[in-house]
Amino acid sequence: MTEFQYPDSFSRSGPEPAGRFTGLPRYNFVYGHNDPAQIPADELADIAADILRTHGSSLAMYHLGHGPQGYLGLREFVAGKLGRSRGIDCVADDVVLTSGSLQGMDLVNETFLEPGDTAIVESFTYGGAITKLQRLGVEAIGAPLDADGIRMDDLASLLETLRGRGTTPKFIYTIPTVQNPTGSIMPLERRHRLLELSAEFGVPIFEDECYTDLAWQDGAPPALYGLDPTRVIHIGSFSKSLAPALRVGYIVGSWDVLSRVLARKTDAGSGAIEQMVIAEYFGRNFETHVATLKAALKRKLDVIVDALEREFGTTAELFVPKGGIFIWLKLPDHVDVRTFAQSALDQGVAFNPGPDWACDPEAAKNYMRLCFALPDEDVIREGVAKLARICFEHTGVPERSANVVQPPG
Amino acid sequence: MTEFQYPDSFSRSGPEPAGRFTGLPRYNFVYGHNDPAQIPADELADIAADILRTHGSSLAMYHLGHGPQGYLGLREFVAGKLGRSRGIDCVADDVVLTSGSLQGMDLVNETFLEPGDTAIVESFTYGGAITKLQRLGVEAIGAPLDADGIRMDDLASLLETLRGRGTTPKFIYTIPTVQNPTGSIMPLERRHRLLELSAEFGVPIFEDECYTDLAWQDGAPPALYGLDPTRVIHIGSFSKSLAPALRVGYIVGSWDVLSRVLARKTDAGSGAIEQMVIAEYFGRNFETHVATLKAALKRKLDVIVDALEREFGTTAELFVPKGGIFIWLKLPDHVDVRTFAQSALDQGVAFNPGPDWACDPEAAKNYMRLCFALPDEDVIREGVAKLARICFEHTGVPERSANVVQPPG
Repeated sequence: MTEFQYPDSFSRSGPEPAGRFTGLPRYNFVYGHNDPAQIPADELADIAADILRTHGSSLAMYHLGHGPQGYLGLREFVAGKLGRSRGIDCVADDVVLTSGSLQGMDLVNETFLEPGDTAIVESFTYGGAITKLQRLGVEAIGAPLDADGIRMDDLASLLETLRGRGTTPKFIYTIPTVQNPTGSIMPLERRHRLLELSAEFGVPIFEDECYTDLAWQDGAPPALYGLDPTRVIHIGSFSKSLAPALRVGYIVGSWDVLSRVLARKTDAGSGAIEQMVIAEYFGRNFETHVATLKAALKRKLDVIVDALEREFGTTAELFVPKGGIFIWLKLPDHVDVRTFAQSALDQGVAFNPGPDWACDPEAAKNYMRLCFALPDEDVIREGVAKLARICFEHTGVPERSANVVQPPG
Repeated sequence: MTEFQYPDSFSRSGPEPAGRFTGLPRYNFVYGHNDPAQIPADELADIAADILRTHGSSLAMYHLGHGPQGYLGLREFVAGKLGRSRGIDCVADDVVLTSGSLQGMDLVNETFLEPGDTAIVESFTYGGAITKLQRLGVEAIGAPLDADGIRMDDLASLLETLRGRGTTPKFIYTIPTVQNPTGSIMPLERRHRLLELSAEFGVPIFEDECYTDLAWQDGAPPALYGLDPTRVIHIGSFSKSLAPALRVGYIVGSWDVLSRVLARKTDAGSGAIEQMVIAEYFGRNFETHVATLKAALKRKLDVIVDALEREFGTTAELFVPKGGIFIWLKLPDHVDVRTFAQSALDQGVAFNPGPDWACDPEAAKNYMRLCFALPDEDVIREGVAKLARICFEHTGVPERSANVVQPPG
C-alpha cells in the first residue's frame, strides 16, 4: 500500500475519510435500490442498440450537441410526463437534466444557499438533504409532520418565530408526494396553504418529487410547481421509476432559476447514453412500465408489512407508505436503534437508523427506515425475522411473538 | 415566461447566470469535442445490447452493487491500461471512476483546498482548472512553460519565493503528457526534477493525463504517478479516447487520497451503462480504436496546420501539438483576440481566446486555442479562412496572404 507523503496538504474541513467498501449485506434494506427483476433489460438492450447505431456519432459532442440542459428528447419526455401526471405546464426548455436528482439538489442548494443561511426541511426527511445542508454551513430546521405531511399550523408558527428573530429561510424543502421516509402524500388543501405561507413569508419552495411516479394510486394532487411555478423549484428522478444506477434526474424551473443552476453545472453534461435510452424506452412504455413496477413493489410492501407485523407485533408502529420503496417504522420510546445497527450489519442486516433521517436525531432514535425493493420475498422475511431477533437481544423488544409455539405450561 | 418571485433568495456569491444556448456555431473550434466519424457506433450498439441483456438487472443497484469506486470491470481495465502504457503499477481498488475527469478535478480540489490556499498550475492551462480554483477562493499561480512543459528552474524559483513568504502551495496541477493548450510532452528528466521539487518543498503533484491516450507517438515518458505514487494524484478520462458525452473519467491514488475523495463523492455513482460499455468495448479494442482515432486526428491536424499557414502565414506562430485535439497559436503582440471573439461568433466562428487559458490573461491576449477534432476538413479550411479575415478586419493582420492573386501593377 502506498502511503501519501503529504498528509498536511489535505483540507482540514469536510467529511471524515470513507471506509472501504465491504460488499453488500445479505439483508439489504438500505439505499434506494430498486427491484432487479423489474429492470426491463431486454427492451433496454434493444433500444440502446438502436439509439447507438442511429445517433452514436453525436456522442462526440458534449451534451450531444443539445446544449447544457441536456438531451432534447428526454427533456421533451419530462415536460410531457409532468403535464400528463403532475399538472405542470412546461416545455423542454424549462427542464435541465442532471446526474440523478442528487445533482439537482446540489445545484439548487448552490443557487440559493450561503453559509449561515437557514432552510426548512421536513422533520423526517431524506438524510442526504440534511447532510448537504450541514456541509454548506446552513441551519436545517425541521417542520413537524403528520400522516399527511407538513402540518401547516406548525409551519406557520415556525415561520412566524423565525421572522421574529429576523430570519427568512432560503427555502422550504419538501417531498410532498410519497415523502421520504414517511411515505405520505400532502393533500391539495395543504399544498394551497403551503403556497400561501410561501408568499406571505417570502420563502420559495424546493419541491422534490423523486418518488412520485411510484404512488400506488393515480390522481395525487398536482405538484406544487404545477399550482404555482413562480414560487417553486421542482426536481425529479428516473432512479425510482427505472433504475438508480442510470443517474438521470431533472430540475424544472423558471429561467431565473435555471440560468443560475446552469452557471453552476460545470460538469459538461450528464451521461448521454442513459438520457437517450430513457427517452426512447419511456417514450414508448412509461405508463405500462410504471404500472408493472408498482404492482411488484406493492407486493413486496405487503410481504414486508406482513413480516414486520408477524415479527414485531404491536412493538412496531408501521407507517405504511402511499407508494415508493421505503417503509418507516417506530419502536417503543426506550429503544435506540443505533445501539444495534452495527451488530445487525455485522450479521448481514442493513437498515437505516431513524436519526440519520431526522433534523433532531434524538427524536428519531427509535425509528428506522427499510427499503423493500431490492431483496426478494424470502430474503425480506428472513431479514425482518433476523432484525427482530437482534433488536430483542439489545432492547428486550419485541418479545417473541405469535409465530413461536409456546411450550405447554 | 414565469418569473421567479423570490429574486432576493438567490445566493449573492458565485457565477453570473448563464445565457441561453443558441445552438452550435458552424465553425466550431471550441470545447473538447471529438471526431463524430470516429465514434464506433455499431460496435458500441452491439456491446450495449449484450451488456444490458446480460447485466441489465444490476442497474437496480446503486453503483451496480460494486461499491462507490464504480464498475469493477472498468476499474480493472483502467489499471491494466495504465500498467501497459503509463508505467503505473496499480490495481482496480486504486481507481475511482468519476463522471468525466471534470468531476475528478472537483473531487481532488475539494480534498485538498480551502479558501485562501495557493495552488500552482501551468501558466497556460485548461481554463476550467483556473475557474474552479478561483471559485474556491484559491490563488492560482502560473509556472512558466516552454516547448517541453513547465520550466523546472522557474518552478524552483517560484517555490523558493513562495516559501520565503511562508506559503506552501497545496499542489502543483500539471498536464504533462499532451498539455492543454500547448500540446507539449514533459521529458523524463523534468519529471524526475518535478518529483524532487515536490519532495523538497512538500508540495504534492496533481497530474492530469486526460489527453495522453492521444499522443501521436507511443513511448511517452512514464506518468508522474508511475514514477512515484506517494507524491502524486492522477486523473484521466475516456472523453478524448472515446467520446466526451459519455462522461467517464477516473482518479488513481493511494487510499489516503481516495478515502477522502470518496467521502466527498456524494453523487451515488456515475452513469452505469457507459461504464459497462467502455469496459467491454475498450477491453477488446483499445489499441486499435486509439490508433485509428489518432490517425484521423493527425490528418485533421495536418489540415488545420496547412490552413493556418496558408491563411495566417508568418503572422501566426503555431504550437503544433504532440497529440490530442487542440492547437495553440500566437499572433503578434498588438493583437487582442478578445476584440474580435464576439464578432467571430456572430459570424459562426467559435474559438477559445487565450486569456481564458492563462493564469495571467493579459499575457495571453494574443493567443488562441482551436479544437480541430469536430469539424470536417472542408469546414476546417473555410473556418480558418473566415477567422483570418475577421482577425484582419479587426487587427490589420494577417495581411492577405499567398492565396490571393495580387492585381498587376
